[in-house]
Amino acid sequence: MSITAITSAAEAQEWRELCQWADEHYRCRTFPKDVRIPTRPGLVYLVQEGVVRLVSQTPERREVFVGFITSGYPFELSTQERFDLKACTHAERTAVMWFYWQDLEQWPRFHQKVQEDFRYQLQRKLLWLGNLGQRRAIDRLKGFLTLLIEEHGEAYEDGLVLPWVLTHAQIGDAIGATRVTVTRLLGNLRSRGFVQVLEQNQLWMPNAVKIKRPPSAAYTTA
Amino acid sequence: MSITAITSAAEAQEWRELCQWADEHYRCRTFPKDVRIPTRPGLVYLVQEGVVRLVSQTPERREVFVGFITSGYPFELSTQERFDLKACTHAERTAVMWFYWQDLEQWPRFHQKVQEDFRYQLQRKLLWLGNLGQRRAIDRLKGFLTLLIEEHGEAYEDGLVLPWVLTHAQIGDAIGATRVTVTRLLGNLRSRGFVQVLEQNQLWMPNAVKIKRPPSAAYTTA
Repeated sequence: MSITAITSAAEAQEWRELCQWADEHYRCRTFPKDVRIPTRPGLVYLVQEGVVRLVSQTPERREVFVGFITSGYPFELSTQERFDLKACTHAERTAVMWFYWQDLEQWPRFHQKVQEDFRYQLQRKLLWLGNLGQRRAIDRLKGFLTLLIEEHGEAYEDGLVLPWVLTHAQIGDAIGATRVTVTRLLGNLRSRGFVQVLEQNQLWMPNAVKIKRPPSAAYTTA
Repeated sequence: MSITAITSAAEAQEWRELCQWADEHYRCRTFPKDVRIPTRPGLVYLVQEGVVRLVSQTPERREVFVGFITSGYPFELSTQERFDLKACTHAERTAVMWFYWQDLEQWPRFHQKVQEDFRYQLQRKLLWLGNLGQRRAIDRLKGFLTLLIEEHGEAYEDGLVLPWVLTHAQIGDAIGATRVTVTRLLGNLRSRGFVQVLEQNQLWMPNAVKIKRPPSAAYTTA
């Protein structure tokens, strides 16, 4: 699967400069799937390739999925005492680069873009929180899948397909339900045609519509 | 109760200029308690006085509390189809002013501060999401109260007190539980000394510790 999201040649040029700068300054690294990316507060990370899964670790050491960060988009993690935020790779080959904020100021257009994207991410997370306030697990599951797929889905027939797989346990942890409940409710949603499961366990939501998002400056090939 | 949070005389001066500019351009308004503040996507709002309650409306028209915005801090709301974000006043006299992003560029220091605060808000919301992934309502309630009080609490004896009241129904909607469950669990937490209820229904958490936050540029008196 591939997405191409280039807003302008100038932005693509800035992105290439950024990647080159990171390479020259040893500020990038490629990881295999499902490893924790070492992060430091005060640094901003950009995904070059692959996809990052953000998780929040609860006091009883469960990892709650709180979102994906895809190629060209930023994340940052300020450590906290009670709940620890972590970034894990979610694709076989995931590359990230990192910057201090003052480094990014060399590319004012991109610096602005990163700030805008964090504002966008905040708006999305407010919606996620609204979704999780719903009492019935089936409603939280429907909302969760919709929010995720309308943001990250790729066109497939008359709907959108999520290009990565989350386990039922991961979905359960994200919506405050057990793995068993998620399996049962997904069966229910499949029989109602709300969602379908493709050959590699990918979720396809017929009729889902992609939301508008500030475009990534990166070429994305996965 | 009152907070004074001024990082420097220069910032306080910028804040006064901002308030004056908003006043001269009819970009500010004062509201009574519990009304919806009319908002438009693309505008950034700053709370001058009082406190704003952000809520996310679910498809079945329930209002899920997703956070407070206090004096000197920003919020923005981009309308969405499925979940509608709204801002409501939560104090008797709540004043907000609003700006286009390009307006704010007249005050570069403040413009930067607003961006930083949105990044801070995103980090907090990721923690909220982690909290809501917990399966037991008692754990979600404890996490919710901790996150809220360590952010907004004011010093009281050896702990922090939340200066505003949320109803048990509002707390329930925020953590995916019923009002009845919240009442019962709060009783449980009170008997264990985790939280106490003061005369005007304010929640006091002994031993809670205030978290560091980018300071507001505003004088806050409430």
